[in-house]
Amino acid sequence: SRTIRLAVVPGDGIGQEVVAEGLKVLEAALPADVKLETTEYDLGARRYHRTGETLPDSVLAELKGFDAILLGAIGDPSVPSGVLERGLLLKLRFAFDHHINLRPGRLFPGVSSPLAGQPEIDFVVVREGTEGPYVGNGGSLRTGTPHEVATEVSLNTAYGIERVVRDAYRRAQARPRKKLTLVHKNNVLVHAGHLWSRIFAEVGAEFPEVATDYLHVDAATIFFVTQPERFDVIVTDNLFGDILTDLAAAVTGGIGLAASGNINPSGEFPSMFEPVHGSAPDIAGQGKADPTATVLSVAMLLEHLGYAAEAARVEAAVAADLAERTGTRSTSQVGDALAGRVSG
Amino acid sequence: SRTIRLAVVPGDGIGQEVVAEGLKVLEAALPADVKLETTEYDLGARRYHRTGETLPDSVLAELKGFDAILLGAIGDPSVPSGVLERGLLLKLRFAFDHHINLRPGRLFPGVSSPLAGQPEIDFVVVREGTEGPYVGNGGSLRTGTPHEVATEVSLNTAYGIERVVRDAYRRAQARPRKKLTLVHKNNVLVHAGHLWSRIFAEVGAEFPEVATDYLHVDAATIFFVTQPERFDVIVTDNLFGDILTDLAAAVTGGIGLAASGNINPSGEFPSMFEPVHGSAPDIAGQGKADPTATVLSVAMLLEHLGYAAEAARVEAAVAADLAERTGTRSTSQVGDALAGRVSG
Ligand SMILES: CC(C)[C@H](C(=O)O)[C@@H](O)C(=O)O
Ligand SMILES: CC(C)[C@H](C(=O)O)[C@@H](O)C(=O)O
Repeated sequence: SRTIRLAVVPGDGIGQEVVAEGLKVLEAALPADVKLETTEYDLGARRYHRTGETLPDSVLAELKGFDAILLGAIGDPSVPSGVLERGLLLKLRFAFDHHINLRPGRLFPGVSSPLAGQPEIDFVVVREGTEGPYVGNGGSLRTGTPHEVATEVSLNTAYGIERVVRDAYRRAQARPRKKLTLVHKNNVLVHAGHLWSRIFAEVGAEFPEVATDYLHVDAATIFFVTQPERFDVIVTDNLFGDILTDLAAAVTGGIGLAASGNINPSGEFPSMFEPVHGSAPDIAGQGKADPTATVLSVAMLLEHLGYAAEAARVEAAVAADLAERTGTRSTSQVGDALAGRVSG
Repeated sequence: SRTIRLAVVPGDGIGQEVVAEGLKVLEAALPADVKLETTEYDLGARRYHRTGETLPDSVLAELKGFDAILLGAIGDPSVPSGVLERGLLLKLRFAFDHHINLRPGRLFPGVSSPLAGQPEIDFVVVREGTEGPYVGNGGSLRTGTPHEVATEVSLNTAYGIERVVRDAYRRAQARPRKKLTLVHKNNVLVHAGHLWSRIFAEVGAEFPEVATDYLHVDAATIFFVTQPERFDVIVTDNLFGDILTDLAAAVTGGIGLAASGNINPSGEFPSMFEPVHGSAPDIAGQGKADPTATVLSVAMLLEHLGYAAEAARVEAAVAADLAERTGTRSTSQVGDALAGRVSG
């Protein structure tokens, strides 16, 4: 028998509600001989207002000891933009070297896409998670004056690109269509872009069965709405991945269904799973939030911890539930239904 | 009587074909007492292969003397990515300080959008054109080795942001809905983002009638496909504008209809008008290209040179033509039809 030690960060707004349902489904999915031990951490806007802390070093040190982290949502309009993002969410991704930011884009049967013709969409974006314009390497001069100059530096390393590119090739190799698309903007951001393109070609030599292509990020957004079925696996930089995965969520039925994993495949640090949606303070506490994105993130968590069959069962439960959805259900009704399907 | 001195850069691929139709319509639209004097410049992939030149200083100096520039399309797969973009297209934008990159997103009646429900779309993106990640301020260390590090620096100045933000407020003020949305990523790119937000608020004080809001770029892509009717005027940085305007083109019926103006409102340097689409070498020389984006760019050129009524006539001709389109017509058939409507 095994024990999974899971850190849970419900966070702000609807975070609490959706995480409760995610845990319900996780319990239902785990084999009987696996014990789930959860420890909740109070992080986010409330703690920030109470103590001024975003992610104290002591908490970071504790989190390090867990098998994985489940996060709900972080953020509130009362906190200045950037404080919780840089001080908590991104701090976790960087501290735990979550270089694989995995985001599936899948249109489930029964879910309506804003795209006419309801195309078949089933791709996965492998977004780099620890480099690019996200490194926090910016500054400003003459701040607050009419002569202010502000910079943001995108940092890109062969080491950092190679590991995410290789991970993406492996995923493409394991999928039926075996297609990998690199997205960048190598005609303008020539230094970073050429580095990505070089590594993409070099690592590609190890995967002769994988068919590859390249798209500029602007062109990629066009194909996301005109021909999303053309994509299988996409690998891209941190910022382009941020933009493309929200667009992917939109065309696959909305941010309420979009799951993500912030993964460190080495296992040296815990990986973190979270719905892509935010804290949605306008509907918080009303039982209106859709917990499906959190439940799909739980499936990714299961997969990551080696429970592939259980992950598949959670996904199948979601697929079946979505195919039959009618009327309005509360957050916990959806969670109950999914947990029921998983254990049933 | 006045003479308009126009520099014409047909460029590569379908550039030649679409520019010919654009000029046809321009001639038809101009008042009888206005003389159009065009000078063609051979720039692009062919010249690069022949001479190694992208934009010689002598040509740049000559171009400076024109009232405006009409450009078809630049680029060919035979030229390494970045050479013509940085050496020609962006060089022109920077040399002539084209800080207003204007890109309308309008779904014309009769044009089918990939979005279900054919929403009403009529916004304009005011993209900054001379700063941000486009400044070419990148580099690489240990190039070509497994230890390569590549950087790209986004440069943002209060001066540069203020002029484009003020331009966008003016445009919003002049439109019926009077709405302006700032798009950035100020929760991650905090230095550049906060500078944009500060200037946006400061300049906003001069335009009390304009309603404003802010969206992160990732969230903006969602609204582009789920609620594009919510947008009126959008102001954003160079790279986000690049991405969003291709997405805008996609949801408004495709890149074949998307016009753009690279504008220097001071008139110190000539402004440049070009379709957003590329050179499309696969269909070049076959009379298959749709010249509509070029014709709409000609309308923007007319507007810029002070011929607002003529610009409106060109737009109306395009709208009428699109509403009645059936069957396939050649590039010149479309141009003839539009020129006919404009003069008729
Ligand atoms: C909240 C923000 C820092 C974050 C990001 O930009 O990565 C979010 O948009 C996401 O996609 O997870
Ligand atoms: C070709 C390229 C340099 C250009 C850009 O990135 O601005 C193009 O995509 C555009 O939008 O005009």
